[in-house]
Amino acid sequence: MSISTSVPAYAAPAAKAPLERTTVPLRPVGEFDVLIDIKYAGICHSDIHQARDGWGEGIFPMVPGHEIAGVVTEVGPGVTRYAVGDHVGVGCFVDSCRDCEYCAQGLEQYCVNGTTATYNDRDKNGEPTYGGYSTHVVVDENYAVRIPDGLALDIAAPLLCAGITLYSPLRHWKAGPGKKVAIVGLGGLGHMGVKIAHALGAEVTVLSQSLRKKDDGQRMGAEHYYATSDLATFEQLAGTFDLIVSTVSAPLDLDAYLRMVKTDGAFVNVGAPEEPNSLNMFSLIGGRKTLAGSMIGGIAETQEMLDFCAAHGIGSEIEVIRAEQINEAYERVLASDVRYRFVIDTSTI
Amino acid sequence: MSISTSVPAYAAPAAKAPLERTTVPLRPVGEFDVLIDIKYAGICHSDIHQARDGWGEGIFPMVPGHEIAGVVTEVGPGVTRYAVGDHVGVGCFVDSCRDCEYCAQGLEQYCVNGTTATYNDRDKNGEPTYGGYSTHVVVDENYAVRIPDGLALDIAAPLLCAGITLYSPLRHWKAGPGKKVAIVGLGGLGHMGVKIAHALGAEVTVLSQSLRKKDDGQRMGAEHYYATSDLATFEQLAGTFDLIVSTVSAPLDLDAYLRMVKTDGAFVNVGAPEEPNSLNMFSLIGGRKTLAGSMIGGIAETQEMLDFCAAHGIGSEIEVIRAEQINEAYERVLASDVRYRFVIDTSTI
Repeated sequence: MSISTSVPAYAAPAAKAPLERTTVPLRPVGEFDVLIDIKYAGICHSDIHQARDGWGEGIFPMVPGHEIAGVVTEVGPGVTRYAVGDHVGVGCFVDSCRDCEYCAQGLEQYCVNGTTATYNDRDKNGEPTYGGYSTHVVVDENYAVRIPDGLALDIAAPLLCAGITLYSPLRHWKAGPGKKVAIVGLGGLGHMGVKIAHALGAEVTVLSQSLRKKDDGQRMGAEHYYATSDLATFEQLAGTFDLIVSTVSAPLDLDAYLRMVKTDGAFVNVGAPEEPNSLNMFSLIGGRKTLAGSMIGGIAETQEMLDFCAAHGIGSEIEVIRAEQINEAYERVLASDVRYRFVIDTSTI
Repeated sequence: MSISTSVPAYAAPAAKAPLERTTVPLRPVGEFDVLIDIKYAGICHSDIHQARDGWGEGIFPMVPGHEIAGVVTEVGPGVTRYAVGDHVGVGCFVDSCRDCEYCAQGLEQYCVNGTTATYNDRDKNGEPTYGGYSTHVVVDENYAVRIPDGLALDIAAPLLCAGITLYSPLRHWKAGPGKKVAIVGLGGLGHMGVKIAHALGAEVTVLSQSLRKKDDGQRMGAEHYYATSDLATFEQLAGTFDLIVSTVSAPLDLDAYLRMVKTDGAFVNVGAPEEPNSLNMFSLIGGRKTLAGSMIGGIAETQEMLDFCAAHGIGSEIEVIRAEQINEAYERVLASDVRYRFVIDTSTI
């Protein structure tokens, strides 16, 4: 595959159109590139958003997918990190400027000059990028991560976005022994948060709309589980948490949630509500509290997360689907009807 | 004064009534108490708020004043920290539980069981507390701080609230050499922020509604001065600041201000807008940014601040008034017509 070719993929041909089988160009394997035979690709809520052009300016046809797990089948002559046969993953971005202060710190996700997103973006040559709902992808070796032995590729795929999205803030805000951590929402993101926070040694609470998934949450490592539909929860847990990580993508009553944060504690949003929230500044002032956001993680931290998950036997809880089920799966994701992540078996494309 | 007595004071007899001269009870000097001959008392915006019962449940008659500077004239038998003749200050609170995790950390301002405010509160015996618009006050020695030699009492008084309100977040969020710090608003709080941040070694910018006070700001230590009425300011300064401290007590366009914060930087509110703000979570997520609040400081940190100010020759810029000018001064504070803090000469009460 050293010359330009095409590969099968599932793509949205236009905004809001259902995804369908097609072929898309695959760039030649360059000096520092690896060619990955994709085995599994997770379905992230933001795939649906972008395929339906929810943020505008989508590039169509669009092949979503930034939770990619596969096997290296070819390497460019300058590649040193990977060899044919290695298990690797690709997350939300495939390039960055490599020069700014954030790239230098391993915070490529905050690259001043902008990362190149794994799909729905254009690379440095102006060519569209295509994501993981495909059989192959070519990526610079510096933007691939190693999936450790002992971590199956199917349950590893969602770690590339959902896993790192939770791991990074949990580490940054120091979840660990002696810390009380709450995860808001037990979905694709939240269930990773429970598992990782528990493995980090924190005392974990799930704050979910209902108690419907309580057994699952406890099995994953939550010691406590509360329904946020019950307003007594907010009173009962006032001043409790060192850290709350919210995975919810709808606006919340931030003031109510901040009352559950301890002095010097933090409420961190990794969900991405599109509508503005209302916030009373007194909710922060009275206890030197932090309201923050966090977005995925850098390459080195993503590798650290995969190694951590392998060491602790953590994978995503998944439902593997065939490619022709993608559109149906999208509807089920929107209806919160998935426990806890859909993963496409890309051999079915 | 070892028996209960009364002292002259200026008090609001009822909500919204002008302040007038009266007398209020002074508690006997207890075993660990010091009697302070008040020399100067600063006027804080929150005095006006409380005297006019803006937060409700005010205790009247109310003697405001929590920026107190004076001289010890009597000490209880158990007092070890102060002696007659010492210069001391009293800030926003005169007691706390002394037992909770925050009191134990020197964060008495966040005492779980609630501090006893210097005025408009009730002490452990249920008696009302009266503030600094008076000739005397009796305070437990653990809630007084030493005003170092070389710091005149008049310019020291406002440090007890305005000074510590800025010092604490500037230290907590690590203002110092190599850091770009912006202070929003150049009033009683803001001008202390500029002086202290500059003395800490940070590169200081003032963000003010207009350029009216630019000369003052630069004299106080600001290297840059921008008008927030000019929307180009927000574009020009995108991604600039490690720390923005806002002293403004009106709701701001938080999303616009957060665009000026760097990745991993913080926007900290010490002003207290009563109305809720609107906030788009993407303003935080895209750069792991922090929105936080901070409220005054603990006793040890207040002492540290006074020592720092003395060492750096920092005082408040003040306009000394006679007691009968208090009501007029309130109007001028509300009109932002003060450079930069009114201080009452309590010998005129």
